[in-house]
Amino acid sequence: MERVAIIGLGLIGGSIGLAIKRANIEGVQVVGTARTRETLQKAKKLGAIDVDAPTPADAVRDARLVIIASPIMATQPIMQEIGPALLPGAVVTDVGSTKSNAARWAKDLLPESVSFVGGHPMAGKEQAGIAAADPDLFKGKAWVIAPSVSATEGAVNTVVGLAQLTGASPLFMDPDEHDSYVAAISHLPLLLSSALFSVAQGSAAWPELARLASSGFRDTTRLASGSPEMAHDIVLTNRDNVIHWLDRFIDELRRFRGIVAGGASEEVIEAFTKAQLERDNFLVNGPPQRDVGEPIPKISLGDMILGSAVSGYMKKQQEVLKAAEARAEGKRR
Amino acid sequence: MERVAIIGLGLIGGSIGLAIKRANIEGVQVVGTARTRETLQKAKKLGAIDVDAPTPADAVRDARLVIIASPIMATQPIMQEIGPALLPGAVVTDVGSTKSNAARWAKDLLPESVSFVGGHPMAGKEQAGIAAADPDLFKGKAWVIAPSVSATEGAVNTVVGLAQLTGASPLFMDPDEHDSYVAAISHLPLLLSSALFSVAQGSAAWPELARLASSGFRDTTRLASGSPEMAHDIVLTNRDNVIHWLDRFIDELRRFRGIVAGGASEEVIEAFTKAQLERDNFLVNGPPQRDVGEPIPKISLGDMILGSAVSGYMKKQQEVLKAAEARAEGKRR
Repeated sequence: MERVAIIGLGLIGGSIGLAIKRANIEGVQVVGTARTRETLQKAKKLGAIDVDAPTPADAVRDARLVIIASPIMATQPIMQEIGPALLPGAVVTDVGSTKSNAARWAKDLLPESVSFVGGHPMAGKEQAGIAAADPDLFKGKAWVIAPSVSATEGAVNTVVGLAQLTGASPLFMDPDEHDSYVAAISHLPLLLSSALFSVAQGSAAWPELARLASSGFRDTTRLASGSPEMAHDIVLTNRDNVIHWLDRFIDELRRFRGIVAGGASEEVIEAFTKAQLERDNFLVNGPPQRDVGEPIPKISLGDMILGSAVSGYMKKQQEVLKAAEARAEGKRR
Repeated sequence: MERVAIIGLGLIGGSIGLAIKRANIEGVQVVGTARTRETLQKAKKLGAIDVDAPTPADAVRDARLVIIASPIMATQPIMQEIGPALLPGAVVTDVGSTKSNAARWAKDLLPESVSFVGGHPMAGKEQAGIAAADPDLFKGKAWVIAPSVSATEGAVNTVVGLAQLTGASPLFMDPDEHDSYVAAISHLPLLLSSALFSVAQGSAAWPELARLASSGFRDTTRLASGSPEMAHDIVLTNRDNVIHWLDRFIDELRRFRGIVAGGASEEVIEAFTKAQLERDNFLVNGPPQRDVGEPIPKISLGDMILGSAVSGYMKKQQEVLKAAEARAEGKRR
């Protein structure tokens, strides 16, 4: 039996577990661990994992693929803990909403004998926890893959296979590039959502406002109901990008304010029409096409994991041996 | 046969027509008119109206209740047109997203022999037009009722009965009060939604951002896909309130920016936690309870319309006669 380990069994970790289990790959077992015994038992009962492990270090022992699905800030201590327990040639990935920090922590804390390939499935719900887990959560969504420089091709393909198995579309990105993009498309909306709810709820007229709130207010503030811990971790690990986009957004609001205050009919209608047409175009036609290179071929997670049990291990071991020899050679001189 | 007239058969007018027709009130007929023949035919085919009329003036002839469901800016010319054609004792209401202007136009343009009772059902979709009409659109939603000072009790009850017939909860408000509240809870979210979409789409990185956009971005920008004409009319008839709330929101964003830039963990988590808890509290427990006075009793629209055919007319006629006598008396002195 080859093992896939999931560390953290919340919405994302639990959904990944359900998706892998549903794929029913012969010879592959899912081992999971969570912060509380309660979550771990629930995950087993829901069929998100085959085997439960008491700690991250226990979970990763013998695992070919390790998925860290913890809050961002917990990723660092988890990497520290699992480092010595990892199999040589193991593939380590994560699912955090920011990628630069994860890449840095992996470089500092994981042994050279493993490959780190950062990941970020662009899916979520405002409900957190294993109870909200859903094997279809990632279907049709983007799954950013940000490999470390030293990751093997096999390791990258393993994470591509994982993303594809859940129905997501893998999308390669540099960690810094990723963080600047998500600040705009994901973290800014989160901040607006919370700020909008705060400003309405903080008003003396809130009892009246609340009675008038309809689906528009609800949808625009939906993200404010997400996990504050996640928001906290995002904001602190992506601070400069978040501030950059907040400033751009405040400028945009000032532009709208100017148009409203000016009261010129044509300008007002133009501002709203442009947003409407462009959004409808986006909904119908999807993202603008750019040269995105070769399409990513379909990769089987099962083949990767079962194959890597031999080839990946051998290859990585050879590299490690070669590097050790080179260092020894260097010292001798 | 007593008539209810609907002027404008878009999403709101069409949905009201469907709701009245579904109630199947004996002795009451729905007559409708629309800007295009195409809409009018579709409304008849969908069963939103019984009878089609070529113009607003034709539609209101013999109508006990007139519902203006046009874009806000069209309300003024419509009132001008229908004024001379209205039945003495008729009840006129509207459904516009701003209420002060409607009240002023009604005072200037409608004859003294009719009662104007402004209305605003707090429901909508980003799709416009009769094709999106739904008799359940208003179910469980608030329906603001802003009677003019001179409206009869019977007229107010007629509009209450209309709101209740659709499954909405009537909510009495002064027009100015209404406009200041909806600026916060409805117009501000609309502006944010459009500004957020604009700032992302206007960025050089839009092709990449668009590929990463997920349900959070979609929901937060949903309102940007609404009718630009509606947004235009709202912003221009509620300018001062909209600017007031835009300024408050920019201040709130600056507060969030300060917290993010400060980087103190506790402050960041506190800001997000407060918004999350308060929103969850709102979703579970509804608006904070305030002394809202007597509950509004259930009123039958059918009884009101059929009853008003006699009593409302008589009463209003007596008032008009009395006023005319008083004026004549004044002149004689």
